[in-house]
Amino acid sequence: MSKPLVLYTAPTPNGHKVSIMLEELKAAYGNIDYDVEKINLTANVQKEPWFIAMNPNGRIPVLIDRSNTTVAHPNGFPVFESAAILLYLVQKYDKEGKFKFESGSDEESQMLQWIFFAHGGVGPMQGQSHHFRHYAPEDVPYGKKRYGDEVVRLYGVLDIGLQGRDYLVGPGAGKLSVADVNVMPWVRFHKHAGVETLDAFPNLKAWLDRLLERETVKAGIAIP
Amino acid sequence: MSKPLVLYTAPTPNGHKVSIMLEELKAAYGNIDYDVEKINLTANVQKEPWFIAMNPNGRIPVLIDRSNTTVAHPNGFPVFESAAILLYLVQKYDKEGKFKFESGSDEESQMLQWIFFAHGGVGPMQGQSHHFRHYAPEDVPYGKKRYGDEVVRLYGVLDIGLQGRDYLVGPGAGKLSVADVNVMPWVRFHKHAGVETLDAFPNLKAWLDRLLERETVKAGIAIP
Repeated sequence: MSKPLVLYTAPTPNGHKVSIMLEELKAAYGNIDYDVEKINLTANVQKEPWFIAMNPNGRIPVLIDRSNTTVAHPNGFPVFESAAILLYLVQKYDKEGKFKFESGSDEESQMLQWIFFAHGGVGPMQGQSHHFRHYAPEDVPYGKKRYGDEVVRLYGVLDIGLQGRDYLVGPGAGKLSVADVNVMPWVRFHKHAGVETLDAFPNLKAWLDRLLERETVKAGIAIP
Repeated sequence: MSKPLVLYTAPTPNGHKVSIMLEELKAAYGNIDYDVEKINLTANVQKEPWFIAMNPNGRIPVLIDRSNTTVAHPNGFPVFESAAILLYLVQKYDKEGKFKFESGSDEESQMLQWIFFAHGGVGPMQGQSHHFRHYAPEDVPYGKKRYGDEVVRLYGVLDIGLQGRDYLVGPGAGKLSVADVNVMPWVRFHKHAGVETLDAFPNLKAWLDRLLERETVKAGIAIP
């Protein structure tokens, strides 16, 4: 029998954001279950018409909520964009607010600020650094330097945000929230972006180590 | 006397997102008033310590809500990241939900999906196209082509999203929401990114024209 949720994904930072969030919710509540469909990015499966019908942008991850059907979406509600999927999941499944903050609170806004910072900065710019270092068909020193430098700058911003804190948002030292889950899988790939160590970012380094010790994070990273 | 809100901004697409949203709210409700502080980006004012204290990323726009003070923020609550500012504004000031959708609804998720698509795709990638075409200190054909092509691809995705619709989200032909305001100022600068006309994207072109006819949009674009 199919499970209520299905995640179309691949082993990339944006894919891992979602599988980690699902594993966190599963460990916290126990009532969430999902299928995983691995998408072969090398074969451009994500550009095929059936995939574009779910996400016009032709990118993983995509979540289908089979428990949420409408006339427009008889097979389940589709959610694209990794950060939008995380917010959908906590809206529907984090009923006790373990990984989010009260609606309309300052903390909720701060969580969104860090989510957008990561989604518009760390993700796309680190993605460019990966491209110019590993995938570009020609050597483009200007691109390597531009995006390598930008990743270092963005990590510095995260390091400021984590000063004296365990997690990006929340009272005191903070609590694990979507803000952290949304950016950690990118920071985890720092070497791929040319940042050999996080020693220059002690708060960020401690935060990454803290997150990587979680069984839920280990499980999420293993999917698919 | 100072007004309840102050917007630190500059005449860029991300700045205009917020001034347009503020003008829409002012026209719809009449009870919103704000000061504008123009930041001189050429002089790197946004990298000065007083600005970094508001936004560790050192970027415009930043909104300060002087009506929302706490021990941590005695001079007002700071909000950085353009899309987070838009969501803060509709959370606090759009009490009748004219520019947003019911909390927890499918439409709210769809609005967030398009916001993240723009914030992680159109904004950063079009920004790179602007850079390589106009600001890079050396000629980098690979960068010009890579980001010019990506802007065209992303506009194609928006064109799919607007097929048979007036606005990106909402029942029927949709209604003007944060999803539209969040991306329109980027599409408006299409020539700067190397896309001379929007003729290849008829839905996007009609949507841009529709938005640019609004007095509120004209007013927002004129700020600062």
